Amino acid sequence: MKIFKVSELISIKRSIETGTSEQLDVVKKIIAEIRTRGDEALREFTEKFDRVSLSSFSVTEEEIETAYQQVDERFISIVQEAAENIRTFHEKQLRPSWMTTEENGTVLGQKITPLDSVGVYVPGGTAAYPSSVLMNVIPAKVAGVKRIVMVSPPDDQGLLPAAVLVAAKEAGVEEIYKVGGAQAIAALAYGTETIQSVDKITGPGNIFVALAKREVFGDVDIDMIAGPSEIAILADDTARADELAADLLSQAEHDPRACSVLVTPSFALAEAVSVEVEKQLSTLPRKDIAARSISDYGAIYVTADIDEAVETVNQLAPEHLEIITENAIELLGKIRHAGAIFIGRYSSEPVGDYFAGPNHVLPTNGTARFSSPLNVDDFQKKSSVIIYSQKALTENGAKIAEFARMEGLEAHARAVEIRLKNDGKL
Amino acid sequence: MKIFKVSELISIKRSIETGTSEQLDVVKKIIAEIRTRGDEALREFTEKFDRVSLSSFSVTEEEIETAYQQVDERFISIVQEAAENIRTFHEKQLRPSWMTTEENGTVLGQKITPLDSVGVYVPGGTAAYPSSVLMNVIPAKVAGVKRIVMVSPPDDQGLLPAAVLVAAKEAGVEEIYKVGGAQAIAALAYGTETIQSVDKITGPGNIFVALAKREVFGDVDIDMIAGPSEIAILADDTARADELAADLLSQAEHDPRACSVLVTPSFALAEAVSVEVEKQLSTLPRKDIAARSISDYGAIYVTADIDEAVETVNQLAPEHLEIITENAIELLGKIRHAGAIFIGRYSSEPVGDYFAGPNHVLPTNGTARFSSPLNVDDFQKKSSVIIYSQKALTENGAKIAEFARMEGLEAHARAVEIRLKNDGKL
Repeated sequence: MKIFKVSELISIKRSIETGTSEQLDVVKKIIAEIRTRGDEALREFTEKFDRVSLSSFSVTEEEIETAYQQVDERFISIVQEAAENIRTFHEKQLRPSWMTTEENGTVLGQKITPLDSVGVYVPGGTAAYPSSVLMNVIPAKVAGVKRIVMVSPPDDQGLLPAAVLVAAKEAGVEEIYKVGGAQAIAALAYGTETIQSVDKITGPGNIFVALAKREVFGDVDIDMIAGPSEIAILADDTARADELAADLLSQAEHDPRACSVLVTPSFALAEAVSVEVEKQLSTLPRKDIAARSISDYGAIYVTADIDEAVETVNQLAPEHLEIITENAIELLGKIRHAGAIFIGRYSSEPVGDYFAGPNHVLPTNGTARFSSPLNVDDFQKKSSVIIYSQKALTENGAKIAEFARMEGLEAHARAVEIRLKNDGKL
Repeated sequence: MKIFKVSELISIKRSIETGTSEQLDVVKKIIAEIRTRGDEALREFTEKFDRVSLSSFSVTEEEIETAYQQVDERFISIVQEAAENIRTFHEKQLRPSWMTTEENGTVLGQKITPLDSVGVYVPGGTAAYPSSVLMNVIPAKVAGVKRIVMVSPPDDQGLLPAAVLVAAKEAGVEEIYKVGGAQAIAALAYGTETIQSVDKITGPGNIFVALAKREVFGDVDIDMIAGPSEIAILADDTARADELAADLLSQAEHDPRACSVLVTPSFALAEAVSVEVEKQLSTLPRKDIAARSISDYGAIYVTADIDEAVETVNQLAPEHLEIITENAIELLGKIRHAGAIFIGRYSSEPVGDYFAGPNHVLPTNGTARFSSPLNVDDFQKKSSVIIYSQKALTENGAKIAEFARMEGLEAHARAVEIRLKNDGKL
């Protein structure tokens, strides 16, 4: 693994995959077809892309029961415990509607309302990611969203992975369709005979799914378009090189474009981690992916001291940050930008991927400067509430009218004044 | 004004102005020039588009003092009072970082951090909108953003409107540049010799500004791309037709594409409001704009009863909603989608545009289904915090490793297990 001085730095930004214009044309055509021909087009695209002919898109109760029989009981209980942890953490994020009152009769406030409906996309392909189901669905459920729809592309037998169905059931999804790709996004955004449209679509997907989400954005809300994953570890000589190497590799195995960075004031640690990474890499099942990631996007930065290391981390604004130093908790106040912060030797990043409770959908590619983990707020919206009394309007009406006229908006001024005139107050 | 039965309904959605491909090419070229040539390009574009040659882009203390002399004292005090009301309302939105603790040593939480820097775009042109300055800047200030930069295109004398400068000063802006258009957005996103880049850009602008914001999105955050404004009024026979007409017109005078809708179970009220709108329209300074808006996008819907009226409003998901009925407050719980809700006869919509305190930057075009008024959360982000103890990892490590292996991610499992092995716990 390459070791740099921090001055040679430093960005974890990788170009975001934006797709080709041919891919975008394909996506636009799929969306148009779904909008005009609904289920019929959905069935055709499913035959074409997923190579299966479905009589019904809906996952049945029976399919879910079968899924429970296919996975082992210990796995079910782990999913249940993880779901409970995620639920508990996200419930702490709930906020009440609130108001303030004044003696002149004014009441101002914010009314918090869940979204009516949300669609969660779950990718298909070789690996099943039940954790992704939990992390996307549970915050929406906790937020109070009444209708949560899951979509995922079927295999060539017309089935979804058992682990995904179990996770969906445990998370509280009651409506699942076996559709995927841009056609699933279009169906969620605009509706078909079978699938009623939703207000927001979340969840990861391939480039066609990402392009489709961008296209429908505005008509419905979407979550972020996630880039490849990254980790930064801030460590000093108190950390063990073999443990840091294992954490760097756990990020690297995700994707050849994943980014794993160690920032440390200790050159000795830097060297030891570099050796350990090579050693552990050789025995990993996904070593080809991890090796490319480490080679292309891995780096160890050696800084003058801890303060420079902290500043380096803030510049990176990493998705995941581990702090494994003496008195690590004391550095928390200096960290301005990171999606999730893991503190201390036992807080290995995978703890947060599955189980601890905080969300694993996190801002990537430096966007932790301005973005947050997926959370309950993403599934609620606020409405301002304004109640003015006769007294409040009488006290303030002239000022409001004057401000409006300053901006050249006479009808605004008159809307206020007509009430005062009608009451003989002007 | 046209009267409809609600079955003939109903959407307030208007097509969003997306610009032509020529406009987009212009914007892309401007951004590229600013990125490569910085201030030099910024100066050239300012000469070209704003027809003024500036030796310095920065607004000086002297210019601000002059602005205070140019506006009258009563206006300054109204701006101050409005700013104070806006500040007070937004301070109620502040949330603390929080944590939960468990006996096994686990600590989980959310760390709330303000954005480092925000740029606020203020449009130029004929009218000055100091209220827009207050509404964009104050939430950022309350959120704790340290660096707030304002940009606005200068007039041909190289100056900004006095009212805008006064509002900026009262809102707490300390860095103002006389640049506008796509070149200002590019400068904020990527920086020049004079203007350091920011993390987020907010504020309305013309089509070139909107296109530039879309282009830089991802490298920096942006607020929503606002569509034309709209109001829905839910009223019954207890409301006065002349007051409702005045409110509808206050929306209509903004823009020919503004949308003003009355929803009522009372046909008598519908007819009376229709007559009043025509009557009041004729005496408005901006009657041409308002008349086009009312003709193209105005509507009165007559419903069977109040419940159907409420459901109609929820379908519209209007930016502004007035409820002027008997016991209006009792309907609040049924309203699911609206940017700002004004309750009762004295809560005329302009009260919220300038003065009451809630933000006037609101979701338009039906996006109140999933979006919120501009608020303090928009200028902060959350970081998850995860602290696991040795005990917590020992208790849960095997479960986490098993979940990881289920998803085919062996390095994730090993990152957890290496710690337990090193401690002799596995």
